[in-house]
Parts: sequence; C-alpha cells; structure tokens
Amino acid sequence: MRRQLSLGAFLMATGHHVAAWRHPDVPADPMDFSSYRRAAQIAEAACFDALFVADSVAAPTDALASHSARSTYFEPLTLLSALSAVTEHIGLIATATTSYNEPYHVARKFASLDHLSGGRAGWNLVTSDAAAEAGNFGRQAHIPHAERYARAREFQQVVQGLWDSWADNAFVRDKASGLFHRPDGVRALNHAGEHFRVKGPLNVARSPQGRPVLVQAGSSQAGRELAAQTAEVVFTAQPSLVRAQAFYADLKDRLAAYGRHEDSLKIMPGVFVVVGHSQAEAEEKFQQFQERVDPRVGVGLLGRMLGNFDLSGYPLDGPLPELPPTEDGQRSRQQLLTELAGNEQLTLAQLGRRIAGGRGHYSLIGTATHIADELQAWFEGRGADGFNVLVPHLPLGLEDFAHQVVPELQRRGLFRRQYQGRTLRQHLGLQRPTNPFFTERGQP
Amino acid sequence: MRRQLSLGAFLMATGHHVAAWRHPDVPADPMDFSSYRRAAQIAEAACFDALFVADSVAAPTDALASHSARSTYFEPLTLLSALSAVTEHIGLIATATTSYNEPYHVARKFASLDHLSGGRAGWNLVTSDAAAEAGNFGRQAHIPHAERYARAREFQQVVQGLWDSWADNAFVRDKASGLFHRPDGVRALNHAGEHFRVKGPLNVARSPQGRPVLVQAGSSQAGRELAAQTAEVVFTAQPSLVRAQAFYADLKDRLAAYGRHEDSLKIMPGVFVVVGHSQAEAEEKFQQFQERVDPRVGVGLLGRMLGNFDLSGYPLDGPLPELPPTEDGQRSRQQLLTELAGNEQLTLAQLGRRIAGGRGHYSLIGTATHIADELQAWFEGRGADGFNVLVPHLPLGLEDFAHQVVPELQRRGLFRRQYQGRTLRQHLGLQRPTNPFFTERGQP
Repeated sequence: MRRQLSLGAFLMATGHHVAAWRHPDVPADPMDFSSYRRAAQIAEAACFDALFVADSVAAPTDALASHSARSTYFEPLTLLSALSAVTEHIGLIATATTSYNEPYHVARKFASLDHLSGGRAGWNLVTSDAAAEAGNFGRQAHIPHAERYARAREFQQVVQGLWDSWADNAFVRDKASGLFHRPDGVRALNHAGEHFRVKGPLNVARSPQGRPVLVQAGSSQAGRELAAQTAEVVFTAQPSLVRAQAFYADLKDRLAAYGRHEDSLKIMPGVFVVVGHSQAEAEEKFQQFQERVDPRVGVGLLGRMLGNFDLSGYPLDGPLPELPPTEDGQRSRQQLLTELAGNEQLTLAQLGRRIAGGRGHYSLIGTATHIADELQAWFEGRGADGFNVLVPHLPLGLEDFAHQVVPELQRRGLFRRQYQGRTLRQHLGLQRPTNPFFTERGQP
Repeated sequence: MRRQLSLGAFLMATGHHVAAWRHPDVPADPMDFSSYRRAAQIAEAACFDALFVADSVAAPTDALASHSARSTYFEPLTLLSALSAVTEHIGLIATATTSYNEPYHVARKFASLDHLSGGRAGWNLVTSDAAAEAGNFGRQAHIPHAERYARAREFQQVVQGLWDSWADNAFVRDKASGLFHRPDGVRALNHAGEHFRVKGPLNVARSPQGRPVLVQAGSSQAGRELAAQTAEVVFTAQPSLVRAQAFYADLKDRLAAYGRHEDSLKIMPGVFVVVGHSQAEAEEKFQQFQERVDPRVGVGLLGRMLGNFDLSGYPLDGPLPELPPTEDGQRSRQQLLTELAGNEQLTLAQLGRRIAGGRGHYSLIGTATHIADELQAWFEGRGADGFNVLVPHLPLGLEDFAHQVVPELQRRGLFRRQYQGRTLRQHLGLQRPTNPFFTERGQP
C-alpha cells in the first residue's frame, strides 16, 4: 500500500483563532464538554489518527487575559478520559509536563487511559514553558532550560520503566487454582537517579499498546535530541516546506545514533487550515475572524508565544522590540516569529494579527484542492509524515476540514477511508514495543 | 418531605469479596471498563447518589498479592471521567491522597471533572495509608500520622482556595466588546504555608457545584476533627448500630465548634450486602464466595487492613498475634478488628475469612426486607444519614441490591424514585457554597 499520511485534530476549546469565541457561530464556553464531544466525533467520522490537547498548569495573568477565552479549560487527562467513552477508534493524546509532576502519577494516568480506551492513549511529553507554572508548585523561579531537559529525560525513563512493570501475559486469572498473576510476571523498578527515586511496580497492568505513544514537541537542540532518543511522534511548527524538510531530515538523521529506524518516529507539523469552496470564500471566512481581533489581544498572545513577555508598553504600530532569548521553553518559536517580523517588516499589531489564527504554524487558506496540494507536497517532499490540524473555530471548523479536505486526500490515496486497526499505534504504523524486562513467555 | 437516605455504590473492580474473581459468574479482569460502565448504569438506574472509588498509589507486594485481583486497577479520576460521559445524574466520588500529590493538580482535576459531569464530582480526601506508597515518590519512609494530617489540612485549604479562584459570574463573554471575563472576577491565592506555596489562580472556572463535594473517611481523633472542620460526607466502618450511633453523635457534636449545622455533614457507614429472595438463598450465595477464599489470601488481606503487617509467618489456626499500633493510617480499622478477634475468639484464618467480603464493614446477608429493616433502623436511629454499599461481586451484586433492596426502601418512603436534582450536592441535600472572596455581584 502507498504510504499514508497521519492526521491529528488539535482541539482547543473555542478554536485556535484568538477571536474565534467572538464569532456568532461559535459557542463561547471553553468548558462545555458537548463541543469537545462533537469535535471528537467529527474527527473520528473522518478517520483522524488522534485528538491532541495542549496544556499549561497555570492561568495566564497578563493584562489582556480578560479579553481571551484561554484562561480556563479542561484538564487534558480528565477530558480525554471522558472522550474515550464516547469514541471507539480515534487516538487520544494529552499533554503533561515533566517539570511539575511525579512520574508515578503520569505513568499511571496514561496507562489507565490506555486501558479505558482499548489502546488509544498518547502522552505529549513537555517541559513547562511558562514561568507562571513554577509559582503553583512551590518554586520561586522557573527551572532553567538545560535542567528541565535533564529532568525530562530521567522522567521519561522512569515512566517507561513503570509501564513495563508487568509482563504482558502476567495475568493468568486461574479461577480453579486461585492464581491471579504469576509472581515472576511483575518487577519493581527501583529507580534511583538524580531527580527521582521511584520503587514501583506500577499498579496498572501493562497497557493494550504496551506503552502509550510518546509524543514530543520540542524543537530546540536539546528537544530534538530527546525526541530522537525517545519520541514516536513529533509535533512542530514549520514556516515553509524548505524549513520543514530541513527539520525532518535533521531529526530522522539523529535516529540512527540510537539504533532506531526512521519509520519509528512520525513528524507531524502543525497546519492552520481555513477551507472554502472557492479561494474567495476561504479568505472571506478567515477575515470574519481576523476582523474580530482586538490588536491588544493579538499582541498579548504574541507576548506569551515569544516566551511570556509583557509587550503592552510598546506602540502597536512600532516594530517588534529586541527581546532577550527566552528561558521559557518557547525559544524555537521566538526565533521563528522574530525572523517573520524582520523579513516582512511587520508592526507589532500586524505580527499579533498574523499569529492570531495559526499561532506561528503554517497557514493554508483556500479550497480543498489547494490545501490537499500543499499537504501532499509536504508529505511527498519529506517535510512531514502527517499533520496536526488547527482550525480557527471549533467544532465547526473541523467539520469543514473533515467534509472537504479529507475526501480530497482520500481520493488521492493519501489517507484511509476507514480505520484498519484498533489502537493509536496501529493508526500511526508504529510497532507495539516489547517489554525488555521479560521474555516472550513472560519470564524475568 | 420525609428525611431521605443517601446511597453510594462503592465500586471495586471484580467486587469487594476477595474471592469474587474466582466465581464463575464474575468477569475476572479488573481493568475492563465495560464492567464499570455496567455497574455505573445499574446504580444510576436505581437513583444512587454517587459512585465511590477508593485508591492507593502503590501495587501490593506481599507474598500473596499474586492470588488477589487487587494488584492493578484504573486510576480513579480517569475512570470517573470516562464514566461521566456515559451517565447523566449519578455523583462521581474519587479518592486522592494529600500525602503524595500537589494541591494544584488535585484542585484542577476535580474541578475539571465537575465541569465535565455538570456538577457531579466529589473528592475523597485521604492521607496515604500504605508505606509502599512512599517509595514511589522519592521518600524512604512513610510520613508520620500527625504530620500527614497537618499536611492534609493545609492541602485542603489550598484546594478550596483554588476552587474559589473565579467569581461564579466572572465570565461575561461579551462578543461585541471582546470582554471575556471581568478582570476583577479572578484572584490569585498567594498561599504560603508550612507545606505548600501556591500562587494560583486555578486555570479552571468555578465549577457547577461551586466546589466538588468534600468526602473523608478518617475515623481517628485527628481524622474526625479534620472531618468536622471540612468534610461534607464521611464514610466510615462501624461494626454495630450502637457504635455507629456513638460515632454519629460524636462527629455531629464536633460541628458546632466550626459554626456548622449538623445537616452540612452526611455520615455514610459502609455496609456489605448479599441479597437473596430468602435468608437461605442469601447465605448460599455468600457461601459461594466464602468457600473460594484461600485462607492465606484472607490472612494477607487482613495483614494489609491491620496496617500492612506480614502475617504469613503465623499459624493459620492460631490467634491474631499482638501487633504494635500501626502508623499506616488504618489505626481505627486495626482496633476494630482486634476487638472482633478477641470477642469472638477467632483464629487467624477465621478472621481473614470474616473480612474477605465486607472488609470490616457491617455485613447484611438476607432478604430485601431484612436488609431494609436494618438500614432503616440505622438511618432512623441516627447511626447513619445513608450508606456506602459494598457488594461481593460486580457488576451483578449491585444489580441484586438495585432490583431488590432499593424498591423496598422506596416503598417505605426512605429513598427517591427519581432524581430531583442534577448535581451531587442536590442529591445529598448539601448547599452550594458561596465564594467568600467575591460579593454576590462578583466583585472582590
């Protein structure tokens, strides 16, 4: 079969466009579960590989937070657990930070979601990118970038070790003899490292996927290296096909050093999509959101995306001020936006408006044919193995993509017409990992 | 209307009887979501107030863990979030420890569940009761009892403060002006205490119930005092009506010191129930489980319930050995079981078998009439405001209770025939708490 692309539906309350909630067609409550259920069911009917949910463990506190719909939202694991009960096939990828969590809790919750969903869980491993998060966990200041990644690497090792606590066939459940699991089918982890001491074993059986799919989004050097070592899916923001190809080649090249095949890691750039039956209709649709952007709100979002800088003191019609390199985990995004502002000579207000929809992701505004052409070019040109799809408003923007772009991708033989497997790994074409601590017969 | 009793369905994988999984009618997989969904739907059809799920953050590692079905299970918040999507009315009470968690995470997840479920979340606040948990969170030894409670009290204060981060009417969502929430409708907590420093605000809007219902189960002096100060529901194990009455009176008497009315705290003893159409049928049903108890497994469970003692070295037909007072948070249970063994001159094996079903909770084995008589006597004799119902096997044991005992309680006018409200607070007859940080108009 021809190589197939993967699609993730990046869910975010009212939609990705910062002004989406002001549109008359958009339900303006980011804590309305029925909107998420609707979006999940639209994505599943279109055979998306997965839903994806971002996260932060702090509320934004900048001056214009009051003008954005992003201050409150569902906690991702509770949200995706609820969605697992009203879907059957689609993958469920939640973000959880390694900076302010305990690996035992994280291992456990994702393993639990994998069981609840019959093998559809994915963990988007991040390091915390907002200084505000530190204050909610007893810290005065944010953990520096290098230390965050060292902690993340060890965190991932512990989580993976806990996921492998049980042999797949440990549970014999012999009603006659009373033996529920083989005593040698379980092992303590006894991890003692620089950041964590974790005994184990996990109190969740090895999960349907062996391990939930490991997703990452860091694009810094440290982020790429951690991804090459451990990730199975990488989300990324790439401004052009050329840059996407460079990123793709760089990351795939790093795999060999860890003994990994290039198919064992899927690269899925984000793409912001507005679909119309004509180019004019798509642009008109986009304008309906753009014209609702309060410039101060756009600049507020910009400040957050650049690394939590307060830009409210700078003139809206002036240039992007020079900023120190952020320690806030958005360094790659900061570089990307600084370049964009310089290349196109954008004012602060223009740059804020520019990212109000796609938030720095590649934007496609046009007909299904045009969008499919671009996605195909990226996919066949080895800039992407698939895409994480951002739409301006939810759930309706996803319906536009599902009803117009997906059929076009299917006609071209690039995307499935029905699910072939049951698990997220199967959708993505990823192997189920064996458990290194036990033989195939489940012996230690 | 006549005072109504409350019913909780205490869900535990294959059921509460330690040998339940060996019964031919019982699905033996504790990680099968469909069993939980079935149980939840049975309980909801019978108008139970809530589902209740216990928790531990460690797998049991004693020698006979291999002969029990309790080594692996769903993480409660993911499980109840999934169940929230397939139920409409029933409350969802999850256990989470204050000993090895961060208050920001706990506040957030329960608030998220409260939103997902339209106001049905409850938090069973516990201190960790198993030394094994310490090792999964970087600690060499368990936190001593007194310190656990001091930490728990501060933890609860932080969580409650975070739940009150937002005024109920902060969210104006004015599409025309672009104002999403009033800037003065949110406040940082800025908590700085002995155990926690938490800035806030929470990134979840104030939840449908104002705050999720606060449940506790500690019966020690420290536990009772914390409950009197903060709890809205108390689960407890009481061996007789006389003892239940004493506990009930003691706890209700403590409320006045905190300016609380006695109706603001509901006391729900656990009751283990086996129902038959005749006394003989009920006993025969119970025997089908009892005869499947491996005495060593019964004694293993007993050791855990006494405070994680290894009793495997003692003769099965000898008496319960003298044990030092446990530091493991099961002190009240230890006293109760030591008394029981002494009063009835039970051997170790007999005591293990005795707790194999009800685990120290009051047991009722008989017809629906008999069981309803007992529940009514406890309820009207002020030994209970309701009951947390444990059944030997799930989901079928719950069906017996729902189809036989519930109609009898309804005929007597003691229990609702249909839900009157939408939220767990409404089911339980608890007030929705006002937010002390904001005026009724939502001003600070």
